[in-house]
Amino acid sequence: MNEDGLRLYLPGPVTTDPRVRAAMMRDWGVWDAEFRSITAEVQGHLLHLACGEGTHSCVLVQGSGSFGVEAMVQTFLPRDGKLLIPVNGKYGERVTSICEKAGRDHAVLSIPEGIAVDPAAVDQKLTDDPTISHVLLVHCETSSGTLNPLEEISRVTANHERKLLIDAVSTFGAFDLDAERLGYQALATSPNKCLEGVPGCAIVFAPQDAFRTALGNAQSHSLDLADQWRQFEATGQWRFTPPTFVIAALAEALRLHKVEGGNAARLARYRANHEALADAMERQGFEPLMDRTKQAPVVISYRDPTDPNFNFTDFYTRLRCRGFMIYPGHLTDIPTFRIACIGALQPEDMRDVANAIGDVCREMGVKYLGL
Amino acid sequence: MNEDGLRLYLPGPVTTDPRVRAAMMRDWGVWDAEFRSITAEVQGHLLHLACGEGTHSCVLVQGSGSFGVEAMVQTFLPRDGKLLIPVNGKYGERVTSICEKAGRDHAVLSIPEGIAVDPAAVDQKLTDDPTISHVLLVHCETSSGTLNPLEEISRVTANHERKLLIDAVSTFGAFDLDAERLGYQALATSPNKCLEGVPGCAIVFAPQDAFRTALGNAQSHSLDLADQWRQFEATGQWRFTPPTFVIAALAEALRLHKVEGGNAARLARYRANHEALADAMERQGFEPLMDRTKQAPVVISYRDPTDPNFNFTDFYTRLRCRGFMIYPGHLTDIPTFRIACIGALQPEDMRDVANAIGDVCREMGVKYLGL
Repeated sequence: MNEDGLRLYLPGPVTTDPRVRAAMMRDWGVWDAEFRSITAEVQGHLLHLACGEGTHSCVLVQGSGSFGVEAMVQTFLPRDGKLLIPVNGKYGERVTSICEKAGRDHAVLSIPEGIAVDPAAVDQKLTDDPTISHVLLVHCETSSGTLNPLEEISRVTANHERKLLIDAVSTFGAFDLDAERLGYQALATSPNKCLEGVPGCAIVFAPQDAFRTALGNAQSHSLDLADQWRQFEATGQWRFTPPTFVIAALAEALRLHKVEGGNAARLARYRANHEALADAMERQGFEPLMDRTKQAPVVISYRDPTDPNFNFTDFYTRLRCRGFMIYPGHLTDIPTFRIACIGALQPEDMRDVANAIGDVCREMGVKYLGL
Repeated sequence: MNEDGLRLYLPGPVTTDPRVRAAMMRDWGVWDAEFRSITAEVQGHLLHLACGEGTHSCVLVQGSGSFGVEAMVQTFLPRDGKLLIPVNGKYGERVTSICEKAGRDHAVLSIPEGIAVDPAAVDQKLTDDPTISHVLLVHCETSSGTLNPLEEISRVTANHERKLLIDAVSTFGAFDLDAERLGYQALATSPNKCLEGVPGCAIVFAPQDAFRTALGNAQSHSLDLADQWRQFEATGQWRFTPPTFVIAALAEALRLHKVEGGNAARLARYRANHEALADAMERQGFEPLMDRTKQAPVVISYRDPTDPNFNFTDFYTRLRCRGFMIYPGHLTDIPTFRIACIGALQPEDMRDVANAIGDVCREMGVKYLGL
C-alpha cells in the first residue's frame, strides 16, 4: 500500500513497494562509476531472469514499454523484412502503427478481442506467405487480459525458420520466458509491470549476435538498440541521459524480486491474487470476461453490471475515494472494467478491492450484477 | 546538497532539491484525473515559461532530451524537407545521426568546437541553398559550453523564410526563450537541466498549427509528437505509459522555479554561480576554455593542468570521495574538464568545489596549472 493509503490495481504502472520509491531519494551522476555499476547490476540481474547469461545481451532504453517494442521492431526487422502481427487487441494494433509509420512491410492476422491467437492460424499464414521474415507476438494482450500461446507460436515460427519478436511487456518477471527454449530474436519488456519498478525505461533482450547484425536497420537514432548495445559493450555507458532515478528504483525492485524467490514465486503470488479476487468477485455475482482457467493472472476484465444504475465514472470515483484505483475496460464491443493482480499487492488486497466493489455497487443501487 | 552529502556539478541530470525527490514518494495511476491534472499543470506552467500561452502547445514525450530533439526533427521536418545543421560539438553531430538514420535530407555547417555559430555563415548557406527548408540550432553546445547566438540566427532564418527548430535542452528555464520573439517552429528541452527536475521525459513546444500540420511526417510512432499532441488535445491523456514519478517531480520542480522568481531569477543565480566559480578557479590559476564574458553560465570547460602529475581519473576520484561530482571534457583536441553551474546549487557550492579542486591538485602534486 502507498503512503497515501492508495492501492493501484492497474496493469502498470503498478503499486510499488515503499523501498522501491525510497531508492529514488538521492541523485546520481550518469558518468560516475557507481551509476555505471548500477546499470551493469540491473542488466546482469535481468539477463539471469531471462536465462540469457553468456548468450544474450540486455539493452535498456529510455521511454515506456511501447518505446521498447518499437525499438525492437526498428532494430531487428531488416528494412527489407516483413512482419506478421497477430492482432487481438490494442497492443497488437500499436505494432501495426509502428510498421505503417516506418514504412515496414507487414501482414496482420486479425483475431477477435478476448480470444487467444491460434497457433494453427499463424502456421497457415507462414505457409501462405514465404515473404514473411518475422512474427511479433504480444504475450499478454492487456486490453482484454488474454494470454497468447507463446510456446506453441515459438515452435511454429521456428519450424518455418522465421524469427520471433516478443512483446512481453506485461509478463516478464513472473512468467517463464526462457531465452534458450523460446529461441526468440528479441524480447521487449518494461520495469513497471511484473518487475514492480517505476516507469521510464524499457528492456530488450536479444542474442549478442542479433545485436551485432542489426546495426543499420533502425530509422530512428534514439530507438537504435544495436547502436546502444555497441556503446554498452564498449564503455558500459548510455548514449543519452538515462532516467537515473528509474534505474535506481529498478535495481531495488530486482533485489526485492530476488528476495521473494524470483519469477516462480512472483507468479505464484499473482496466481494467489487472482484466485482471491476471482473467488470474492464471483461470490458477489460479477462475471469475468474470460473463463478463470484460461485467464492469465495479470489483469482481469469483468463485464459491467447490467443494472442501469451502474455508471463506470461514478463507480470509479467512489472506489478511488476509498483508496482503490482500478482501470476502465478497453474493448470495443463489450462494456468491461479491469482489475490487475500484479504489483506490490497480496491476496488480502484483492479481497479488499472486491469487497469495496460490492459495497460501492450497493451504494449506487446496482442490483443486477450478472446477465 | 544531496542527503549523501554529494553535490553534482554536471550539465544534467543536475543536483535536485530534496523536495523534488520527495515528490516521487507516492504512486500515480496514469488514467486517473489527479495524474491528468498534474500533466495539465506541468504543460500550463511550461507554456507560461515559454511565453506561448494561447498560441503554442507543449507536448511531453517519454525519453531523454535527445529523444525530444529527435522527436522534433521526425515530427516537424517534412519528409521532403531539408535541414541545415550548424555543428560545433557533440549535440549538433547527434542531429546529423538522426537525419542519416531517418534518411532525411540535410546539410552541415561545420564550426570548430568552442567557437560560436556565425549568423553570417548561416545566412550564406541559406542564400546558397534554396532547398533548405529548416535550420536546427543547438542553443548551448554543452560539449564545450558554447552559447550560440540564437536571436541573430532566428532573424536570419526568418529573413530567408525558413523554419527554425531549437535544441534548448540545456537552456530552457533560465534563458529568455520567448516563443513569439523567436518565432520558432519547435523548441525541445529537458526537465533535468535548468528546470532542475529529474530525467525521464522531454518537452517540445510548437505553435498549435504546426502540430496540426505535422501529422504524417514522423517515421517513428513513439516519437510522433503530432499524434501525441492530438491525443493530449482530445483527452489530456498520454498515448503510452508516462514516467509518472518523473512528471510528479517536474511539477514540484516547476513550483520551486516559480517561488524562486522564474527564468530571470534562475539565470541570475546561475550567473552568480558562474562568477563565484570563475573567481575562485582563476585565482588558483585554472584557465577556462572560453573568455568569461562569452561564456554561458551553464557548464564551464577548464583546460587540464599542464603538470604531468595531473591525471583526470585520479582527480575525479579524489573529488568524488570529497562529495563533489564533476564531468570530463568532451573536446577532441584540447584536454578539458567541465564544471556545471546549473542545478540546486548556490554560489557557496561553487566556491566549495573550486577550493576542493585546489586541495586535490595539491594532494596530487600538481604544480603547474596554467600554460
